[in-house]
Amino acid sequence: MAFKLYGLPMSTNTTRAMICLHEKEVDFELVPVNVFAAEHKQPPFLSKNPFGLIPLLEDGDLTLFESRAITAYVAEKFKETGADLIRHKDAKEAALVKVWTEVESHYYEPAVSPIIYEYFVAPFQGKEPDKSVIDTNVEKLKKVLDVYEAKLSSTKYLAGDFYSLADLSNVSETHYLMQTPCASTVNERPHVKAWWEDISSRPAFTKVVGGMTFGQNQEE
Amino acid sequence: MAFKLYGLPMSTNTTRAMICLHEKEVDFELVPVNVFAAEHKQPPFLSKNPFGLIPLLEDGDLTLFESRAITAYVAEKFKETGADLIRHKDAKEAALVKVWTEVESHYYEPAVSPIIYEYFVAPFQGKEPDKSVIDTNVEKLKKVLDVYEAKLSSTKYLAGDFYSLADLSNVSETHYLMQTPCASTVNERPHVKAWWEDISSRPAFTKVVGGMTFGQNQEE
Repeated sequence: MAFKLYGLPMSTNTTRAMICLHEKEVDFELVPVNVFAAEHKQPPFLSKNPFGLIPLLEDGDLTLFESRAITAYVAEKFKETGADLIRHKDAKEAALVKVWTEVESHYYEPAVSPIIYEYFVAPFQGKEPDKSVIDTNVEKLKKVLDVYEAKLSSTKYLAGDFYSLADLSNVSETHYLMQTPCASTVNERPHVKAWWEDISSRPAFTKVVGGMTFGQNQEE
Repeated sequence: MAFKLYGLPMSTNTTRAMICLHEKEVDFELVPVNVFAAEHKQPPFLSKNPFGLIPLLEDGDLTLFESRAITAYVAEKFKETGADLIRHKDAKEAALVKVWTEVESHYYEPAVSPIIYEYFVAPFQGKEPDKSVIDTNVEKLKKVLDVYEAKLSSTKYLAGDFYSLADLSNVSETHYLMQTPCASTVNERPHVKAWWEDISSRPAFTKVVGGMTFGQNQEE
């Protein structure tokens, strides 16, 4: 039975899971969730994820939520297929993948998310982007990217000289970041810039990028 | 060679790693880091963890940071010893451990941490706890604990009928929470209360709880 992924093709968290599924060449059905009608906050969806958030993965009778738990599950289940995203044959490399996946989750995403929100979600709600929120988070982001720059000057990818979940986890939010004036934070750091060009050109990402249209409608 | 864990016995993130090491009956040396003198923000430590945070684990030539990456590594390396914290023999159970570990990381800890900060860190800095910060986060915490209560009414632990990393990850911050007036959020929910009494009575936690003295000094 094919996987069912509940989510939206423009959502950063949904595409995090989609990219992983594509890396692993796993068939899945994307089940759209109408978040604009708050479908994810109503009983049928809430019974699958009590936190009412997308994405959600169904694999037979197994229901999983939280995008990073989904990617870890998919990467483990299909560890012999496609890119080895968890370095399962080397315990030390596998541990470093976990470290840098946590870094994305606890440092990178918390800095990038509010920036994306101000540039994409606020205008959608008829509000001006809040410059002070942007400035505060750009400062946080720069500190994280300074660490990335140093790490990527010694290894090709975040966890080592191999593409892994640690890199994949960054792709969706960075895609939107690069469409804002804050793209300079990436472009000013040569190793980060080269890394971004590398990971954003992988076929798995090119399969989802066309659907990442948030922020485009209100410009029409 | 024994593991070296850099950190502080009163730190929630350090004790998260310590509890896991004790569950696995792994010998380790706790190397104190003088955070009050900002030792973790200076070069020798920063060269091990560029984010300048404790805990940090050294296993021979492998250096790991981020407490949840450390616990995942230890639980995997010693999967045949002590409590099976990652349910490595059952892919579905293992996936649910990941889901509920992410829940602690993305919902529970972000609500509990500011409460602990206001009750323990602010007085240490000579400030009054900020009631509005506490109130805001108690509201968030209640929503998370409502989900916990529902889950724990159908399974004994968060990921299923087995103690796992998903439960362990909550122990340290809950210990401090229970010393504040906000302990009522736990005590008012019978399944959460029973779960807390269960997981806080495990021998691995009783080995670290004596060192969790933050907030006690200023009362003397």
